[in-house]
Formats: sequence, structure tokens, C-alpha cells
Amino acid sequence: MSGFGSILILSGPSGAGKSSLIKAAAGEIGDFYFSISTTTRAPREGEKDGVDYFFVDKESFEADIRAGEFLEYAQVHGNYYGTSLKPVREALEAGKLVIFDIDVQGHAIARERMGDLITSAFVTTPSLAELERRLRKRCTDDEETIRRRIENALVEVEYISAYDFLIVNDDFEKAVDDFIAVAKAARLKKGRKQALAFVNAWRNTAG
Amino acid sequence: MSGFGSILILSGPSGAGKSSLIKAAAGEIGDFYFSISTTTRAPREGEKDGVDYFFVDKESFEADIRAGEFLEYAQVHGNYYGTSLKPVREALEAGKLVIFDIDVQGHAIARERMGDLITSAFVTTPSLAELERRLRKRCTDDEETIRRRIENALVEVEYISAYDFLIVNDDFEKAVDDFIAVAKAARLKKGRKQALAFVNAWRNTAG
Repeated sequence: MSGFGSILILSGPSGAGKSSLIKAAAGEIGDFYFSISTTTRAPREGEKDGVDYFFVDKESFEADIRAGEFLEYAQVHGNYYGTSLKPVREALEAGKLVIFDIDVQGHAIARERMGDLITSAFVTTPSLAELERRLRKRCTDDEETIRRRIENALVEVEYISAYDFLIVNDDFEKAVDDFIAVAKAARLKKGRKQALAFVNAWRNTAG
Repeated sequence: MSGFGSILILSGPSGAGKSSLIKAAAGEIGDFYFSISTTTRAPREGEKDGVDYFFVDKESFEADIRAGEFLEYAQVHGNYYGTSLKPVREALEAGKLVIFDIDVQGHAIARERMGDLITSAFVTTPSLAELERRLRKRCTDDEETIRRRIENALVEVEYISAYDFLIVNDDFEKAVDDFIAVAKAARLKKGRKQALAFVNAWRNTAG
């Protein structure tokens, strides 16, 4: 079954702890590729190309749009943001688990385009009040950003039932354990092509 | 989230090791209810009511069919076999994970009726030849039964892509680990009602 990876999509409010979960579980879930977004906005201080984002110019981004090279993209405040398919395809061909951190809209689009490879989980705090508390505690956002994140969260939680699994990040150790289970299961997801290849080999391979 | 269980469906050829996986993982996956079939056939030597099957008479079985009390049922050699919904509902209300060992047809019917609660995995040997070897090795079946099981297996593997996950029982320790991940993930599956209840509580609960 080598050469056939699969996809794990994580969504959920900023502040719910998606990045911390991936970091804490990284040693337990095998080889994975964390999908990095492509953007036309300028790098902020400390941001690195190929780590935080792939930074490209507008012409190159629009050429890739025309070539169908984005799984999904959006324009925000005049800048493009999108998920390039090329590194995803390469990781899948290398048999890796590809992890996406995208919003509910990105999840819906990805489902439509490569749903047979996807396992998805919505990650959230146990309550709205706890989300607000965590956003304030981390002190990285100004008041307007916090308010926008909370408004987004109130919309996004409405889509929980579109996800395979719900991870409630209350007790962090428990949430890490849940995330590891979901990521390990996601590796066992077989797309149509993989399933077909497996069945053909299964029938014809001597034990 | 108590009071809301979820469902894990296992299918796959007889001889692939579903029962052994459940047995080996039982201590690791929390409280679960293994769904027992109901039948009108007479108990064989050593079979116990409420352990191997629920043994009932034809009249009672047919009354339950009319009352919609079966998730699915079939008639084989003049005997009824079916999955009663009552114990499943009780286990779900108790917040348990309900595990079904049913065939691909039962899986399809269950998906239609309670798909939002279901995570499913197809369990198989790495090859057809290995399946045959295991069936012969366990010495419980006569030649005709072995042949029938293999014919069934050849049909059932065609449905692998209808399942969420594929567990290939090659190295048993690895298969147990895979099964534990799938069962733990299945607990994080939220049906429509659960998701709605969670979102309502999430918005209104003080952190």
C-alpha cells in the first residue's frame, strides 16, 4: 500500500489548540506533511518562506489559479491565500499523511474534490467562554482581532456535524490522546484508487 | 456529552480476525457494547442466550419485524437472523460505543438508518491465499464451509471503499494498534443530535 497517502483536515476556532495538538502528537503519528498555505501578502517579521507560508507574487498565484493548481483559495484584504495542490500530491505519492489546518469552507471544498482520501476533525474549546479566556491569555491579538476570532468561531461551530470527529480540548492530555487516535485512523483511510489497487493485489497475491 | 454513544461497524471475511482484535483491544478502548444478533435457529451445543445470540421464536421475531425493531434482518436456510435495535439504543443512551460485526449489506443498511453515528472499518487478511491458510489452520470448518467463506470474501472485498478505514491484519500487534485508534476515534463521532446539543451548550456555558 505504499505510495498512497491520505488526508487529515483539522478545523476549529483559532485558540482551540490545533497547533499545540499537532506539536504534542508529532512523535506518535508517524511521517506526515503539514500543508502550508501560499500567499501573496508580504512576509511579516520573523516569517519564513516554506515554513509559515509559501510567499509568491500575484502573477504567479493567478497563473496557478488558471492552471487549477489550488485546492482552494480566497482573497482577503486584497491578498490571495490558497492551498497549492503540488506539495500535497507529492506528499500523498510518498505515502504520507497530509494534515491541513483550514476553515470550514476549505473543508467543504476539499471534501468535494478529494473526499475519499479525507478524515476530518473539528477541534474546539469546551465552551465559548473558555475560548475567549484563552485568546486573552495568549496576549498575541488586539481587542478587534479577538472579537473577530470569536465571531468566526460562532459561525464555524455550526458546521461541526460536517466533520467526522469532534475533539474537545478541555483536558490537554486527553485531547492529545484523541488527536493521536484520529491521526492514526486517518492513515487507514483508503481512497477509491487505493481500495481498487488493494483488492486487485489481495485477490492475486500468494499468501 | 454523556448520554450520547456512537457506533463502530466492523466487516470483513470470516477468518480475518475481527473477534481476536476486539478481544485484544478490549482493555484499551473504554466501555463498549458488542452487538449480539437475534435468531430463530436453535442454539447449538455450548451456545448461550444473550452471549452468542438472543434466541427467540419465529412469532416473536416476526412481531419485532412488524414493529420496526430490527436494524436489519435476513432469512437463511429458513431461519431468521437480525440486529435488534433495543439493546443498541440502550447502549447509545448509556453513552457507550456500540460495536457491530456485520456483513457489507448490514453495513449499507445501518449507514442509511443511522449513518451520522457510524464509523466503519473493513478488516481483512493481507491476501486471499492467507485467508484460506487461516481458515484451514483453525480447523473449525468443513471443506464446503471454507469454500463458501472464500466465495463470500471475494464478494465482500469489493465493498472496501464503502468503509471509512481498512485494517489489514498482517502483523497482529500492528492490527490491534490500528483497531484501538479506530475505536477511540469512533467515540469522537458526533451524530446530528449530539452536535446540535454540543453547539448549544458551547455557546451558553460559562467557561
